[in-house]
Amino acid sequence: MNSSKNSSNDHRLICTVDIVLLTLREGQLQVMLLKRDREPFDGALALPGGYVHTDEDQGCEDAAQRVLLQKAGLQSPYLEQLASFSGPARDPRGWSVSVAYFALVAAPEHGQPGQHWLPVDRLPQLPFDHGRIVAMAVERVRNKSQYSSLPVYLCTEPFTLPELHAIYAALLGEAINPVSFRRKMDELGMLEPVPGAKRADGAHRPAQLYRLKDEYRRTLRLVGRGLNA
Amino acid sequence: MNSSKNSSNDHRLICTVDIVLLTLREGQLQVMLLKRDREPFDGALALPGGYVHTDEDQGCEDAAQRVLLQKAGLQSPYLEQLASFSGPARDPRGWSVSVAYFALVAAPEHGQPGQHWLPVDRLPQLPFDHGRIVAMAVERVRNKSQYSSLPVYLCTEPFTLPELHAIYAALLGEAINPVSFRRKMDELGMLEPVPGAKRADGAHRPAQLYRLKDEYRRTLRLVGRGLNA
Repeated sequence: MNSSKNSSNDHRLICTVDIVLLTLREGQLQVMLLKRDREPFDGALALPGGYVHTDEDQGCEDAAQRVLLQKAGLQSPYLEQLASFSGPARDPRGWSVSVAYFALVAAPEHGQPGQHWLPVDRLPQLPFDHGRIVAMAVERVRNKSQYSSLPVYLCTEPFTLPELHAIYAALLGEAINPVSFRRKMDELGMLEPVPGAKRADGAHRPAQLYRLKDEYRRTLRLVGRGLNA
Repeated sequence: MNSSKNSSNDHRLICTVDIVLLTLREGQLQVMLLKRDREPFDGALALPGGYVHTDEDQGCEDAAQRVLLQKAGLQSPYLEQLASFSGPARDPRGWSVSVAYFALVAAPEHGQPGQHWLPVDRLPQLPFDHGRIVAMAVERVRNKSQYSSLPVYLCTEPFTLPELHAIYAALLGEAINPVSFRRKMDELGMLEPVPGAKRADGAHRPAQLYRLKDEYRRTLRLVGRGLNA
């Protein structure tokens, strides 16, 4: 706030949002990238993102929702602020702050044109500091999945408990005791059975289908201890 | 990135950093506030903060360290990014992003002139969205303290294990089993005994003094399960 030293213009800088949109496909965590159609890094695969529009956005989260709708056709998925990335060198256009978010979606049945879903463990080098942003998002999602309802947002509703169990196990990369898993889901209390709806998977008897309770949409439920505790 | 619609100037906005500097005094978590000496909110108690200086700061964390040094005389304490707060209305000067950090320090022996330490549970109404920022920082610190070395930064080195135990208990507001506590500290592995240094507290035999290992300064160590698990 040293206004004698800096003119008001010196305090202004570029502010963008970037979104790490994740899904689980073929047992892999995948991130959605778009091919850039302008400089800098014209033609490179990069995270969906864009400038904050101070004339219409009510905040950076609002900007992220707008970008997700415009560039991925997604309306209000689960979205959480990850962190801000800033400095003079991360964007060739000038001193910048990017407020990064991650969003989770169930695996889309049909790929949208122009959307590239790549496994997070086998990404090419990404422009800006997008590689670092993706790595932090993946770490956050895996950590948080150990003690929360986060993986529910990777599941197409309605789902059976064995299906949800498989999603947790794939995400965490470890076996999860099914009995302990059911107890944790009870503890979370965010699922409700869909009345009369069951699904057979061949080998077992038909399993009850579940959905998220309305009041828990776009929120997170935490358990006191980790899934395998 | 809709450059046809927005001139480059529309993408520029105010960027500040704000710091929630916390300590534990008299068994209470306290936050440091400064009296503002200019508009907006001239004269009000507020978080230390300031504009990012794009001509010298290498990033927002760098800006936060600079502000802490200039306004609180603190050099490189434990500092962690909390979240970004943004929008058209939070700062009367215009559309703004504040990247907020929290920092932990051992209780200062002498108050610095102009620094006001107030208990986080009994704050007056704060300007901007500083009340919300403090609340989020307190929640983060309390949650994280359950499974990490974070409270170590609230302790004056060297310290005894009973002293550190008391800090954890005060912060979490709950009793912590001393045996389980010692085991967790062993698991964290970030403390080392100060050779030959003990401290008597009267009622008990002298206790060994500990300090942080050099390699863990300004980093965080996590335990697999909560302290009371």
